[in-house]
Amino acid sequence: NYLMANEKDEIGIARGLAWTQVGGDTLQIEVNIMPGKGELLLTGQLGDVMKESAQAGISYIRSVSDQYEIDPEFLQKHDMHVHIPEGAVPKDGPSAGITMATAMLSAIIEKPVRADLAMTGEITLRGRVLPIGGLKEKLLAAKYARIKEVLVPEKNRPDIEEMDREIIQGLDIRFVDNMKEVLGEALA
Amino acid sequence: NYLMANEKDEIGIARGLAWTQVGGDTLQIEVNIMPGKGELLLTGQLGDVMKESAQAGISYIRSVSDQYEIDPEFLQKHDMHVHIPEGAVPKDGPSAGITMATAMLSAIIEKPVRADLAMTGEITLRGRVLPIGGLKEKLLAAKYARIKEVLVPEKNRPDIEEMDREIIQGLDIRFVDNMKEVLGEALA
Amino acid sequence: NYLMANEKDEIGIARGLAWTQVGGDTLQIEVNIMPGKGELLLTGQLGDVMKESAQAGISYIRSVSDQYEIDPEFLQKHDMHVHIPEGAVPKDGPSAGITMATAMLSAIIEKPVRADLAMTGEITLRGRVLPIGGLKEKLLAAKYARIKEVLVPEKNRPDIEEMDREIIQGLDIRFVDNMKEVLGEALA
Amino acid sequence: NYLMANEKDEIGIARGLAWTQVGGDTLQIEVNIMPGKGELLLTGQLGDVMKESAQAGISYIRSVSDQYEIDPEFLQKHDMHVHIPEGAVPKDGPSAGITMATAMLSAIIEKPVRADLAMTGEITLRGRVLPIGGLKEKLLAAKYARIKEVLVPEKNRPDIEEMDREIIQGLDIRFVDNMKEVLGEALA
Amino acid sequence: NYLMANEKDEIGIARGLAWTQVGGDTLQIEVNIMPGKGELLLTGQLGDVMKESAQAGISYIRSVSDQYEIDPEFLQKHDMHVHIPEGAVPKDGPSAGITMATAMLSAIIEKPVRADLAMTGEITLRGRVLPIGGLKEKLLAAKYARIKEVLVPEKNRPDIEEMDREIIQGLDIRFVDNMKEVLGEALA
Amino acid sequence: NYLMANEKDEIGIARGLAWTQVGGDTLQIEVNIMPGKGELLLTGQLGDVMKESAQAGISYIRSVSDQYEIDPEFLQKHDMHVHIPEGAVPKDGPSAGITMATAMLSAIIEKPVRADLAMTGEITLRGRVLPIGGLKEKLLAAKYARIKEVLVPEKNRPDIEEMDREIIQGLDIRFVDNMKEVLGEALA
Ligand SMILES: [Ca+2]
Ligand SMILES: [Ca+2]
Ligand SMILES: [Ca+2]
Ligand SMILES: [Ca+2]
Ligand SMILES: [Ca+2]
Ligand SMILES: [Ca+2]
Ligand SMILES: [Ca+2]
Ligand SMILES: [Ca+2]
Ligand SMILES: [Ca+2]
Ligand SMILES: [Ca+2]
Ligand SMILES: [Ca+2]
Ligand SMILES: [Ca+2]
Repeated sequence: NYLMANEKDEIGIARGLAWTQVGGDTLQIEVNIMPGKGELLLTGQLGDVMKESAQAGISYIRSVSDQYEIDPEFLQKHDMHVHIPEGAVPKDGPSAGITMATAMLSAIIEKPVRADLAMTGEITLRGRVLPIGGLKEKLLAAKYARIKEVLVPEKNRPDIEEMDREIIQGLDIRFVDNMKEVLGEALA
Repeated sequence: NYLMANEKDEIGIARGLAWTQVGGDTLQIEVNIMPGKGELLLTGQLGDVMKESAQAGISYIRSVSDQYEIDPEFLQKHDMHVHIPEGAVPKDGPSAGITMATAMLSAIIEKPVRADLAMTGEITLRGRVLPIGGLKEKLLAAKYARIKEVLVPEKNRPDIEEMDREIIQGLDIRFVDNMKEVLGEALA
Repeated sequence: NYLMANEKDEIGIARGLAWTQVGGDTLQIEVNIMPGKGELLLTGQLGDVMKESAQAGISYIRSVSDQYEIDPEFLQKHDMHVHIPEGAVPKDGPSAGITMATAMLSAIIEKPVRADLAMTGEITLRGRVLPIGGLKEKLLAAKYARIKEVLVPEKNRPDIEEMDREIIQGLDIRFVDNMKEVLGEALA
Repeated sequence: NYLMANEKDEIGIARGLAWTQVGGDTLQIEVNIMPGKGELLLTGQLGDVMKESAQAGISYIRSVSDQYEIDPEFLQKHDMHVHIPEGAVPKDGPSAGITMATAMLSAIIEKPVRADLAMTGEITLRGRVLPIGGLKEKLLAAKYARIKEVLVPEKNRPDIEEMDREIIQGLDIRFVDNMKEVLGEALA
Repeated sequence: NYLMANEKDEIGIARGLAWTQVGGDTLQIEVNIMPGKGELLLTGQLGDVMKESAQAGISYIRSVSDQYEIDPEFLQKHDMHVHIPEGAVPKDGPSAGITMATAMLSAIIEKPVRADLAMTGEITLRGRVLPIGGLKEKLLAAKYARIKEVLVPEKNRPDIEEMDREIIQGLDIRFVDNMKEVLGEALA
Repeated sequence: NYLMANEKDEIGIARGLAWTQVGGDTLQIEVNIMPGKGELLLTGQLGDVMKESAQAGISYIRSVSDQYEIDPEFLQKHDMHVHIPEGAVPKDGPSAGITMATAMLSAIIEKPVRADLAMTGEITLRGRVLPIGGLKEKLLAAKYARIKEVLVPEKNRPDIEEMDREIIQGLDIRFVDNMKEVLGEALA
C-alpha cells in the first residue's frame, strides 16, 4: 500500500519520510486551517514526541510571522488540524518536525509545497534543523515514491557521504541547517 | 441480531460496513445536530482511531463548506453528536471515515442519505478515500442486509477483481477516489 | 434489599430493569433539573456504556424538543443530574437507555412517570429501541417488585414468545419500537 | 486517636459513622462556604462513591432550596468545600450521604447541627434515606464517642431489632425515611 | 544536604518538619502570591494528601479572612504558588498542613514568619490542629537545624511526655489546638 | 551527536548541563514568547520534576518583575514556550531550574544570554540556588562543548574542592547562591 508522489503542488500538504521496522515509508502530512479559537488538533495516531514536534513547529512559525506577513492575530482566530494518514498506523519521533512546520506555513500563507520534494529533520523553536536517524531506509522510500529532491539535515551530511552511491543515485539531496533554507526549497 | 437496510432515506443516517472477528457487520451511523457551542460528541464505544476519523471528517466538511452553502459559523454555533449502535460493542479503525463524514454532511445540509447504499473507506483531511481491509466479509454483510450499492475505495479495486464472482453478485459496486464522488452517490 | 414499586407516580423517576450475576433487579432512575449551564452529571457508579447511553437519551430529547414544547434554550440554561441508587453498586450496559430518557423527559416537562411500570431497552439518537439481554431475570425482578406493566423492545418479541408462560403471567408486556411509543405508555 | 462528641453545636459540622476493618469510627464532616463560582471541592481522600454521594446531596439541596429560603443563585455564586479529617485516611462508600447533606445545608442556612447527634444513611436525589451496613460497629463507635442520639435508616430497623440490647443501651435511636426527617432532628 | 534555620524572618516562608525513612528532616515551604485568577499551584512533588492539605489551608484562611483584614476578593484576583524544595524529593502526608497555611497567610498579609520556629500538625477546615506521627525524628531534625521553638499538636502532648528528656532538651515546645494559636506564635 | 557552544549570544537561549547514564551532556534551552493568554507550554519530553522546576522559575520571575521593569500584565498577555531539544530524549530532574529561568527572563526582557557560559542548579520560589548532583560528568561535558564559564551552586563548592584539578582546568567556575547572581553573570 504505497503512496506515490502527488502530481501537482498543493497548499497545506508536505511529504515526510518515516523509518519503520519494515523499512522506510513516506508520510503525506495534511494541514487544514479553519476559523476558530487558536486550537491545534493532531490526528493520525501521533505519539507524544511527534505532538510536541508539531507544537515546536507552530511556535517557530509564530516567532517568524512578520517575515511571512502573517497577521499577528491570525493563529489565535483560526484552528489548525494536522492529520497524517494512514489513520490506524501509530507514528512517533521528532523527524517529521520540519515537514509539519512546512505544511503548516503553506496552509497559513496559502502557497503550495512542491509535490516532487520530501524532507526529514527535527525542528527547534529557533528553526534550527537537527539530525535524524534511519536515513538510508528513508531515502530508498523516497526513490520508490518517485520523489526527486530530498531535504536532509546538514548534520547528517557525514551519513550521506558514507552511503553507497546507488542509494542516493537519482535523488537531488540538499542539506539544510534551518527552516529558512527548508522553506526556500520547499515552497513552490 | 442483524440490521436490515432501512426502508426510506433519512437525514443524518448513513450505513457503514465493519469487519469483526466473527465476520462482517453493518453499522448504522446516526448524527444529530443541535444548537450549541461547536462541540463534537462521539458515543457507541468508539476507539481512538475511529474518533480521530470523525474529526478528520468534520475538518474536511469545514474545508468545503462553501461548496455546500454551509454558513461558515454554522458548526461553531451547533453541537454535533455522532452515535453508532449497538452501544455496548466496542468499535475502532479508520474505515468508517467516509460514512461518518457523509452522515455529518447529510445532517448539516438536511439532505437524506440513500437507504439502499453502504460504504467503507478511510477519509483524509483533503477528502481523499484511502483503502481499507476486510472487504470480503464487509460485502457479504452488505448483501445479507439487502444493501443494493456499495462504495469501495478505488485503491481496493484489485481486491474486488480477485474476488469470487459469487460474493459481489447482486451488489452494485462503485469505486471512489474522493469524498466528492462519495457524496455524489450517497446523498439522495 | 429489594425495592418495591412506588405508591404514586412521580416526576423525574422511572423504573428500569437490570441483569446481575445473582439475578435480575430493578433500578429506580432519578433525575433532577436545576438552573445551570447545560451540564450533565451522572452518578451511581455508572460505567462508560451507560454514560454514553444517557448522552444518547439527551440528544434524542433535544432533537424532538419542539414536539414536547420544550424551550430550545431550556437544556442550555439548566443542569441535569441523573442518579441511580444504590450508590455503591457498579452499573453498566445500554439497556437502561430508554428508562433514563423517560426520566429525563419527565423531569423536563414536569409530567409524572407511571409508578406501576418498568422498562428495558437500548436507545439510539433517532429514538429507535434496540433489543437487550437478560430478559427472563429482568421480568422476574419486575414481578417480585410488584410492577404491573413492562415495556420490552419489539425485537425481543421472539424471546418473550419462547418463554415459559409462568414467568410472564401477571405482567402486562408491551412491545415498543421507538421512544414515542415508550413515552406514550410511560408518562402518566 | 479517638474523636469525642463536640461540646457545642456548630454550623457546617455534622457527625457521621464509619465502618472500618478494625471496627467503627466517627467522622466529623466539615463544610465551608465561600464566595466563588459554584465549585465543589471534596478533600480527605474520599473515594468515587463518596464523592458521588456528596454530589447527590448538593442536588437534593438545590431541589428543595425554596423550602429553606435559599436564594436560587446562592450555590452558583459560592464555592463549597467538604473536608473529612483525618486527611491521610482513605474513605469511601455511600453511607455518609445524609451526613454530608446535613453539614452542607447547615453551612448554607447558617443553622448549627446538634453536637450530641450522629447519623448514617445513603441519600438519593429525592432525599430518600437508603439502608447501610456495619451498623453494630457504627453504634459502638457512637457510644464510645459519647454521642446521645443516632439517626438510622428506617430500612435498617430489622437490624436494630435483632441486635443485643447492650449495644444500643444508652443511645437514642431514631429511624428516618427521608432527608426532611433527618434535618428536623439534626438541625439544632 | 541539610538545611539550617534561616537567619532572618521572611514573608511567605515557614518551616515544617517531615518524617522520612532515613530520619526526620525540615521542609522550607515557600509561598508566592501573584496577580491572577485565583489559581493554586502546588509544586515540589507533593502527593495527593499533601495537596488536599494545602486546599484545606486555603479554605480555612478564606473562612477567617475578615479577622485578618483580607479583602474578600483578594484570593480570587491572585494566584498562589506553594513550592517545597527539594524539587525531586516526593513528599506526602497531612502533617505540613498548619505550616502551609501559615506560609500562605504570611504571604497574603505580608507579615514575616519567625525563622527560628518550626511546626507540625494536620489542619482542618475549621482550623483545628490534629495530631501527627514521627514526632521523635522530627524534633531531632529541628534541633539539628538549630530551630529554637517547635509547635506541636495538643493531642500529641502524651507523646512528648513519654519522650526521653534529651530529645527535647534545648527546644521550646508549644502545644497548639487551633490555627489561631499557631499564627499567634509563628507570625513575627 | 554533540552540541558545541554557540558562536554568538542569543535572546531566549541558555545552556544547561545534564547528567545521563552514559555521561554528561549539554542542553540548549530555548524559550519563545508570543502574544497569548498566559499559558506555559513545555516540550522536549520533560518529566514532572522538570516541569515543576519551570513553573518555579516563572513564579520567581513574576515575583521580581518590577526589578527588571517587566509590565505586571506582560506574562498574562503572552504565552511562553520552553523547548529542550533533542525532542525524543526524555529529560527530568530539578537541576535545569536556574537555566530555564535565565532563558525565560532573557526572552522576556530581550537581553541575550552569554553563549560561552553554562550553568546547573535547582531554583526555589525565592530564587535561592540549591545544590545538584552529577557535577563531574557535567563539567566534562561543558569542557567538551567548549564552554568557558560554568555557574555552580555555592552549596556544591565542597564537591568542586574535592575534584581532580584536571577536570576543572580551563573552566572558569563561579559559585552562585541565588538567581540575582546567576543573572548578573549570564545576561550578556
Ligand atoms: Ca504506507
Ligand atoms: Ca546549508
Ligand atoms: Ca449487529
Ligand atoms: Ca472513481
Ligand atoms: Ca437492589
Ligand atoms: Ca409496537
Ligand atoms: Ca479516627
Ligand atoms: Ca420515620
Ligand atoms: Ca533535605
Ligand atoms: Ca494550647
Ligand atoms: Ca546530545
Ligand atoms: Ca556567591
